[in-house]
Amino acid sequence: MKLYSFPTSSASYRVRIALHLKGVPFETVTVSLPEKAQRLPPYLRINPQNRVPALELDDGTILTQSLAIIDYLEQMHPEPAVYPSDPVLRARALAVALAIASEVQPVNNSSVTDYVRDTYGMDQAGLDKWMAHFMRAGLSAVEALIDAPHYAFGTTPSIADICIVPQIFNANRFTVDISDFPKLTAVADVANANPAFAQAHPSVQPGAS
Amino acid sequence: MKLYSFPTSSASYRVRIALHLKGVPFETVTVSLPEKAQRLPPYLRINPQNRVPALELDDGTILTQSLAIIDYLEQMHPEPAVYPSDPVLRARALAVALAIASEVQPVNNSSVTDYVRDTYGMDQAGLDKWMAHFMRAGLSAVEALIDAPHYAFGTTPSIADICIVPQIFNANRFTVDISDFPKLTAVADVANANPAFAQAHPSVQPGAS
Repeated sequence: MKLYSFPTSSASYRVRIALHLKGVPFETVTVSLPEKAQRLPPYLRINPQNRVPALELDDGTILTQSLAIIDYLEQMHPEPAVYPSDPVLRARALAVALAIASEVQPVNNSSVTDYVRDTYGMDQAGLDKWMAHFMRAGLSAVEALIDAPHYAFGTTPSIADICIVPQIFNANRFTVDISDFPKLTAVADVANANPAFAQAHPSVQPGAS
Repeated sequence: MKLYSFPTSSASYRVRIALHLKGVPFETVTVSLPEKAQRLPPYLRINPQNRVPALELDDGTILTQSLAIIDYLEQMHPEPAVYPSDPVLRARALAVALAIASEVQPVNNSSVTDYVRDTYGMDQAGLDKWMAHFMRAGLSAVEALIDAPHYAFGTTPSIADICIVPQIFNANRFTVDISDFPKLTAVADVANANPAFAQAHPSVQPGAS
């Protein structure tokens, strides 16, 4: 399998965590987001949606969207499971994953912030406020949705933690204050001590700066 | 079960389609988005994320996030399935669902467009352009991802169609031209002729204007 990925892409980071948790071997193909390589024809042939990640299976099939890729990995490599077996807990863990993957990360994506910059002249200070506003709004809701301490739901990592950890990394990267979210920061500390999460960290990826 | 919902909320519309497809009886509780009722304390006790829909189970458990609710329904009421049984097809259908639910709808949500209006003075013409820009960018990618004709993937409705139909309704509501997406408009025509989709339509919900 080949993972088209970028070190600091939080959607790529989610899939890396799932691959390492499940022990599925993969090769990384770095798609340079700073160089906007995701919007150029070679990559558009892989994913017309010009986003990373994309997972190329051994037969050449391309899968896109981080949560769809993780769902596929869960079907094909069910152990260790990243969906809780209890149906309500599974729904709650998925809701946390979607609260981040649907409502925090896409709004902070450069495709949106570039539009606001180009159309309304948002400057760096405006961008910093934008990132902080939408991250804090989303993470505040997530703080209320998770159990913690330890992982978000129980003592093993789930799809919720797979989405929380990259979002906390992003918050730190953009110096967004999240010190008032104690459950989330505790979850990130627990998860980051897990080797699978550590191996997926942006700082240890090919192409990391 | 009680579904906290609003007729034109596309995330609510998705869950209504899934409930009707599976024949699961439910009661509707209308949360008035025009009156911002989703941001007021009575509803915030139901869903701290101030979004509709939320599904209240008979034991009082609250589930949030449309795709997590639909996944729960799929676990508890597996037939008729809305996830394709083939793993790759399932991943492709979920990718389409997520392309819409993660990258079109949240960017067009009033929580984002209100922020741009309040911070950068976006007027009605700017809002119309915003809606058209992000809907067309997302739907253009989806047009490339689906099989069609008939449903998005095959001859039975899946999670992809459940997300496509409300987004096409939204595009029409905001008079976004989608005539150059023939596969998507064909899928919407097929789906809208299915009674489960018709019963979920915003125009026939309690509280519809």
